[in-house]
Amino acid sequence: MNSIPDDLDTPDIMVDLDVLRRNIDRMATALRAKGLRLRPHAKTHKMPEIAELQLAAGAVGLTVATIGEAEVFADHGAADLFIAYPLWVGPRQAERLRRLSTRVRIAIGTDSVEAVEAAGRQLGDAAGDIEILVEIDSGHHRSGVRPAAAVAVARAAAAAGFRVAGVFTFPGHGYAPGMPEKATQEEEQALGHATELLGAAGFDVTRVSGGSTPTAELAGASVITEVRPGVYVFGDAQQLELGRCAMADIALTVAATVVGRHEGDDTAPRRVVLDAGSKVLGGDRPAWATGYGRLMDHPEARITALSEHHATVLWPDGGGLPALGERLRVIPNHVCVAVNLVDDLAVVSGGKVVDRWLVAARGRNG
Amino acid sequence: MNSIPDDLDTPDIMVDLDVLRRNIDRMATALRAKGLRLRPHAKTHKMPEIAELQLAAGAVGLTVATIGEAEVFADHGAADLFIAYPLWVGPRQAERLRRLSTRVRIAIGTDSVEAVEAAGRQLGDAAGDIEILVEIDSGHHRSGVRPAAAVAVARAAAAAGFRVAGVFTFPGHGYAPGMPEKATQEEEQALGHATELLGAAGFDVTRVSGGSTPTAELAGASVITEVRPGVYVFGDAQQLELGRCAMADIALTVAATVVGRHEGDDTAPRRVVLDAGSKVLGGDRPAWATGYGRLMDHPEARITALSEHHATVLWPDGGGLPALGERLRVIPNHVCVAVNLVDDLAVVSGGKVVDRWLVAARGRNG
Repeated sequence: MNSIPDDLDTPDIMVDLDVLRRNIDRMATALRAKGLRLRPHAKTHKMPEIAELQLAAGAVGLTVATIGEAEVFADHGAADLFIAYPLWVGPRQAERLRRLSTRVRIAIGTDSVEAVEAAGRQLGDAAGDIEILVEIDSGHHRSGVRPAAAVAVARAAAAAGFRVAGVFTFPGHGYAPGMPEKATQEEEQALGHATELLGAAGFDVTRVSGGSTPTAELAGASVITEVRPGVYVFGDAQQLELGRCAMADIALTVAATVVGRHEGDDTAPRRVVLDAGSKVLGGDRPAWATGYGRLMDHPEARITALSEHHATVLWPDGGGLPALGERLRVIPNHVCVAVNLVDDLAVVSGGKVVDRWLVAARGRNG
Repeated sequence: MNSIPDDLDTPDIMVDLDVLRRNIDRMATALRAKGLRLRPHAKTHKMPEIAELQLAAGAVGLTVATIGEAEVFADHGAADLFIAYPLWVGPRQAERLRRLSTRVRIAIGTDSVEAVEAAGRQLGDAAGDIEILVEIDSGHHRSGVRPAAAVAVARAAAAAGFRVAGVFTFPGHGYAPGMPEKATQEEEQALGHATELLGAAGFDVTRVSGGSTPTAELAGASVITEVRPGVYVFGDAQQLELGRCAMADIALTVAATVVGRHEGDDTAPRRVVLDAGSKVLGGDRPAWATGYGRLMDHPEARITALSEHHATVLWPDGGGLPALGERLRVIPNHVCVAVNLVDDLAVVSGGKVVDRWLVAARGRNG
């Protein structure tokens, strides 16, 4: 499939069904071979159809980021959900967690004594139906406690009535060139250390959860029991530039039209302008990225500026500029934020649109 | 209004109705005093309620970015719309424009002979019901032709059956420190030059359209007849850091909860983590910005990292860290992309939620 179906208007998001299935199977097979459980992060796709493919390929359950995402996937039949987030639980969040706990196996994250005590007070007896994983900071320095502080948090969780199941981390510092290997090592060290301390303190640690797309396939099964990659289903320009996927692994692209074509002069660069901007690609651009996304069929071109409805694409001197009206496939930098910008997307196979899938959990931020 | 109403869950977007009304009136008054027409860009808010307030304050019509936005505002009673975008018009776009032209006054942008000829072929006789504004590049180097090329595009538009009404530009290079004044000057020069050339070629130029929030209030009425600011209704962290608005002018904030609180040590910084990430704030961060947004009540704090559901906020050494569970107001960097991330938002007045408005044109990218 190398073209954009005629019946699609631009901009629109397309998922190549065959590449998607291949990505799902490859990750499942790789992790099975290592004895690692796969609990994919559904925030990437927010779509029940993709969750079903992941579960059918052997995923043990789903990871989500919010109570709202958990509700959507529970409504669509998911049975085992981990909200990998240090939730602050007020009365309304407690009521929603209580309802979830009656119909699915549910685990939540925490990284402080205060937050888990507050959650316990709000949940009361229902805390006993919810598993806790203590979040560990393995080097990303966002959420999480250092391993040495994990026991205090776990004891507070147990005292609040939760069942302490284990620990988790997000090795987000793996998202930089040359960093996936280092982040994987630090993840294993931090989780290993925390697991050892919790074991020594008498906790039965059954879940040691790590991983991200850049690190999941590098992780060993020595300490870690499960990984939570998300982006691997689609791939994106970040993974491409990190060397964690190839062009052939890209399952999601934004169909765009050339609306501007400028040969350039001494004051303005040679460029085309596409009708896909930050409101469909997302505005993420890490400092190490070469642009705001990549073009699937023109690897030398660079998106040097992004407005809400314009991508400005500098074109290499050698190649002729594409024609006005030509349609090009754009690979977003960060696919999780792109998917969250559309109500539904086109499922493509054999060059045709075979379905449209709703982004059922779009916008479920809380 | 300095607090977050208790009945709001986080993250959620709040609009302060009183500040919003004040911003709308101030811009309308300032432009009226200069004899400039105001055609606010509705892509910022995408909400009919706000469009009504703008029109009631004297706006001559609305600017939109896409045919989809035009359809939404036409459905809600707008009568005069300018799609300020170099549209590529295929058969389906032509049909939608034709339908729009039967019920509202509609103008579209173009910046090439090829695109306007193609649009004319698709529209046939309906082209006569659509006005054309030729887009001029005044220094932003995104879309638009240099003034010297405007006559050729205008002649092609006229030959294709459109009514050529004038010229427009987006002085987007004004979005950088120290640049609003320079961009305003270049905008006036470029529009003035193009207007002169079109007049000499026999065109009756009645619409000379410029402006953006950083430059609108700086524009003179010498050449320009109308301006198209968008962000001024809400303000945002970009405008704040450009010195184009004050904290007291900020009408839109994201209500967020402190979910992580870390005093820091020799390996990790002193910080709090908020539950508002790029999926509600948007990921825009120009190189000159001090972070990924600002905190309304803590001007010294800086959002140094943004994940999808976490804002990592470094805290100045002097001040005590806010408590876990405390609720803080975050000012997005770029309000247009934040609004597009939610289905609806809370309208607040006197410290209470007085309404919820639908973001009616959310996601209407095409």
